[in-house]
Amino acid sequence: MTRHELISQIRKKKSMLCVGLDSDISKIPTHLLDTEDPIFEFNKAIIEATHEYAVAYKPNTAFYEAMGIKGWQSLEKTINYLNENHPEVFTIADAKRGDIGNTSTQYAKAFFDSLNFDSVTVAPYMGADSVKPFLEFKSKWVILLALTSNAGSADFQNVVGQDETKLFERVLETSSQWGTADNLMYVVGATRADRLVDVRKIVKDHFLLVPGVGAQGGSLQEVVKYGMGEEPNLLINSSRGIIYASAGKDFAEEAAEQAKVLQQEMALYI
Amino acid sequence: MTRHELISQIRKKKSMLCVGLDSDISKIPTHLLDTEDPIFEFNKAIIEATHEYAVAYKPNTAFYEAMGIKGWQSLEKTINYLNENHPEVFTIADAKRGDIGNTSTQYAKAFFDSLNFDSVTVAPYMGADSVKPFLEFKSKWVILLALTSNAGSADFQNVVGQDETKLFERVLETSSQWGTADNLMYVVGATRADRLVDVRKIVKDHFLLVPGVGAQGGSLQEVVKYGMGEEPNLLINSSRGIIYASAGKDFAEEAAEQAKVLQQEMALYI
Repeated sequence: MTRHELISQIRKKKSMLCVGLDSDISKIPTHLLDTEDPIFEFNKAIIEATHEYAVAYKPNTAFYEAMGIKGWQSLEKTINYLNENHPEVFTIADAKRGDIGNTSTQYAKAFFDSLNFDSVTVAPYMGADSVKPFLEFKSKWVILLALTSNAGSADFQNVVGQDETKLFERVLETSSQWGTADNLMYVVGATRADRLVDVRKIVKDHFLLVPGVGAQGGSLQEVVKYGMGEEPNLLINSSRGIIYASAGKDFAEEAAEQAKVLQQEMALYI
Repeated sequence: MTRHELISQIRKKKSMLCVGLDSDISKIPTHLLDTEDPIFEFNKAIIEATHEYAVAYKPNTAFYEAMGIKGWQSLEKTINYLNENHPEVFTIADAKRGDIGNTSTQYAKAFFDSLNFDSVTVAPYMGADSVKPFLEFKSKWVILLALTSNAGSADFQNVVGQDETKLFERVLETSSQWGTADNLMYVVGATRADRLVDVRKIVKDHFLLVPGVGAQGGSLQEVVKYGMGEEPNLLINSSRGIIYASAGKDFAEEAAEQAKVLQQEMALYI
């Protein structure tokens, strides 16, 4: 998917919402457990209930891998379902991969060729040659970790170098030379929205994928205020707040309700 | 597997060799392509030919994921084969995972419960709460990226902080508080063996997993000189140099020969 297509969808739906499919067999409604593939049935119902309000879906690969081959099958069915029934949505494999060049190429094949996601999240620790192989795939995107929303992000991401640059700022500066705003986005957590000002000084145009709104305490209003450029270049993720809004038979309706609440607030800013 | 068991095996086999199973369908001998699961057949033959000389096996998950469900099946069959037929060897899922706490727990379940590997490689960028969930599994190990062997490692791992500490040194210092030498190892590349001196100032006892010997130019003698402690606390990896030693029907014999050459040099130091 191109940047233009993504922005058009955001404007059309008046939404920057990404729904995180952290689908956990121990948390989904119990009445689904009798079906052949409960995780896929759950995802399908969530997608059908929310796609009017969401522009992106982000399966978190860990939850699928934890179930072995059956989980990988659920992941494959989910991405195929999205591509066949909702080709307008942007798809993110939240996989946080990254390795030496020939290995990153294999990961890129896994998520771009074999599974046909639009994008994959990548960890920057191993540097240029671990990220660039992902950028060689046409119309595909890297979403590079910059400043994450967890407490541990402070351990290394905020370390200040001799030139006064924090590590996450260096990651932004250095990596923005590897790709462009047309194939490279960044993960920037919402838990401290004022940090978005520092991020935007370095990467003005790039899309940011922002987790941490809602359950983790980030404010949507502040994220937009500090993080959005002239174009609506944000994808704002909510996972648990939407997909586990209800544990009952009304889980899909409640997910739609929560997605709608977020979308309606987003519409004020687009 | 415990540290004691691993060291006993190293002393018994007089080997610190880890064989990297970067098994690529486009590189394995063509006569295997007619079998039902060529990657598994290849791995099985490599394991049978080399286990006398090797103490560890390290499937690189990217190569399996690139093949979708079929690849995940090959990975599962390979780890099951190792656990059933060669329970003495140490197994490494080279997956370079790491995410927020609840997600890292899912990855740990994937590799420790579902697949029953002894260890998994983990990326440090997201900090303490992304690594600790892996350390909560009994008799399982985290192998944390510290200083990798690729050119891109210089982009961030060598960045010097205001206290003169390089990022990889900070990763070693900080993370060594999260686990112990009984459940935490580090990836330290061999391409500049003198760096092992700096590493050993910080983590004296921890096992190091050392890639980059052979094809990537590192010297085994220097790795041992600068990296080995009083105990043989090194795992030295070779992937392509062993598994692709021959592309013909003699691939397993040639792999054994290459593994034996490395083991015999290692025996001089153990």
